[in-house]
Amino acid sequence: MKIGIIGAGQLGRMLALAGYPLGQRFVFLDHSPEAPGGQVGQIICGEFGDPQRLAELAARVDVLTYDVENVPAEAVAEIARRTPFLPPPAALAAGQDRLSEKRLFEQLGIPSPDYHTVDSRPQLEAAVAALGMPCVLKTRRLGYDGRGQHVLRAAADVGVAWTKLGGVPLILERFVHFEREVSIIGVRSTKGEVAHYPLTENTHADGILVRSQAPYEASALERTARDYLCRLLEHFDYAGVLTLEMFVADGRLIANEIAPRVHNSGHWTIEGAVTSQFENHVRAILGLPLGDTRPLGHSVMLNLIGRMPRLDAILRVRGAHYHDYGKTPRPGRKLGHCTVVAATPELRDAAMAELLHCLD
Amino acid sequence: MKIGIIGAGQLGRMLALAGYPLGQRFVFLDHSPEAPGGQVGQIICGEFGDPQRLAELAARVDVLTYDVENVPAEAVAEIARRTPFLPPPAALAAGQDRLSEKRLFEQLGIPSPDYHTVDSRPQLEAAVAALGMPCVLKTRRLGYDGRGQHVLRAAADVGVAWTKLGGVPLILERFVHFEREVSIIGVRSTKGEVAHYPLTENTHADGILVRSQAPYEASALERTARDYLCRLLEHFDYAGVLTLEMFVADGRLIANEIAPRVHNSGHWTIEGAVTSQFENHVRAILGLPLGDTRPLGHSVMLNLIGRMPRLDAILRVRGAHYHDYGKTPRPGRKLGHCTVVAATPELRDAAMAELLHCLD
Repeated sequence: MKIGIIGAGQLGRMLALAGYPLGQRFVFLDHSPEAPGGQVGQIICGEFGDPQRLAELAARVDVLTYDVENVPAEAVAEIARRTPFLPPPAALAAGQDRLSEKRLFEQLGIPSPDYHTVDSRPQLEAAVAALGMPCVLKTRRLGYDGRGQHVLRAAADVGVAWTKLGGVPLILERFVHFEREVSIIGVRSTKGEVAHYPLTENTHADGILVRSQAPYEASALERTARDYLCRLLEHFDYAGVLTLEMFVADGRLIANEIAPRVHNSGHWTIEGAVTSQFENHVRAILGLPLGDTRPLGHSVMLNLIGRMPRLDAILRVRGAHYHDYGKTPRPGRKLGHCTVVAATPELRDAAMAELLHCLD
Repeated sequence: MKIGIIGAGQLGRMLALAGYPLGQRFVFLDHSPEAPGGQVGQIICGEFGDPQRLAELAARVDVLTYDVENVPAEAVAEIARRTPFLPPPAALAAGQDRLSEKRLFEQLGIPSPDYHTVDSRPQLEAAVAALGMPCVLKTRRLGYDGRGQHVLRAAADVGVAWTKLGGVPLILERFVHFEREVSIIGVRSTKGEVAHYPLTENTHADGILVRSQAPYEASALERTARDYLCRLLEHFDYAGVLTLEMFVADGRLIANEIAPRVHNSGHWTIEGAVTSQFENHVRAILGLPLGDTRPLGHSVMLNLIGRMPRLDAILRVRGAHYHDYGKTPRPGRKLGHCTVVAATPELRDAAMAELLHCLD
């Protein structure tokens, strides 16, 4: 089969690298001919929402998927009428708008922080008064890696936040004093088979994921997380990988957001699970049996952001795996990641310390 | 770095798939634009020995390697003067000629079956008389997957073997009544670092490898095998992966042949070892630290020969990994392989039985 991937970033590239051994072939659509996927498949150059380029891609493949969330929903709805488009456009649309996402969580009984919609400065004042501070102002659309967010901690922040983000649809959310950030990655095939990876603990800096560790062993939380995940998967009659990011606060899970795709917090599965999230996404959208999601040990994944460390320094760390996405370095840009899978949490932490030393 | 691979077969393809995450890029030279590597890198079309095509490849890359052994040694010697060519041409040349290989084993004190060179029918008669039957007549060059060999068990076989193979330089070898066939795969970097995988037990049918299982646990044999391997690696000031195939007879190791490259009996390392033979070959020729070669469990690799099984049947086997090389089916052709890594030999054997059922 030939799989068309909208977006040729690192996620698309890793999907292709995982899919070739299954005998699948890949074509990408991306605005840049230099995108990471271009080394491992052909790129059709164009904007994600360009109907002609999308049609060109669709004409060349058996099934369409994506590695970016900002594919215009209207363009997708049109193309999905003629070519299988998975995960389903409805899930993509829900993930694109924080208000839709909030309503989805409410509808499915998945706890998430209280919020108010905000479309004007007076609405913002009223919402702050209702929710109290601290709280977080977020754009409804196109927020990622901490962009499109501002935390309000004191009265003076209201004006700053409005100046920064005002003018587009917003929501104001209660700030969650979380103990931990976790995610659960699940996968559902077109045949309805479901599997999930263990809970992953995530650490962000300036809104960007810097570290994931798995498994995060908390069996009661994992049961709850799996339950939430399954509600989402069934709701959309989903096919592919779906990620649910959550806070752990007062020992409870509170949903933060969904990503209807393979996710940075699942990169550890390439070496750390029997079957990676990338291979399982490919299996899922093709209706193939899902692969074993069991972890092979205690994994840590560190993102390589802004600049790459010395390759030989990383590879000298026993058991280290390196992933260079082939991107031009730029401050704040995710350029690669490295992973270690260890037999115990202690050995994992020792390896992590060595890796962090290389990143200094 | 850009790596040029002479040959774009499944080995070259798997080298590239392993090397992209390390940030490396790949160009192939192959006579067929449809070769498996073409899906994951550009192919320069031409014969392996074509000086112009080789020069074109060399001009585009930082280092040259190969995935086939029948690269003409003269063409290689020429190109290696200007572009790093690894493993070293001398190892390639030794692997191409069974007589050179025999002399190498003798020189390094590595036991291998007694033999006589045979260039005429009378020489064949004399050699049979000297070695006794059964014995094996082999072409000195271009033998692989059981081709270029004939076993002589009775007087009448002498004429048959001569008719089949006579006219090119031959050797006649004493037949080894082996208990097992094993291989050891080692790797040495340009910095002189050496590592090796555990002994692998191999099963052939009609001269073609059908199954590999690792680790083959026999610590005394493994020490000896590692010793032989190190002699070979040091002899050639080797860089890259080197495979030594051996018989186990009367509890002793007897060298059969070397393959100065990644090897089919090491495909299990993709999922079954911390670092695969393919990634380690790339690390080795670039002078990077070698990756951990420890096994992750008990692996079995089954070759998919002649026709492919149903993908969904294989993937339904818990923990099964599938590798489709993207080749056109043809009787006797290696089209792919599948691997299971299990916690115990018993679980491995159970999974293998399931896989074999899919191949029926």
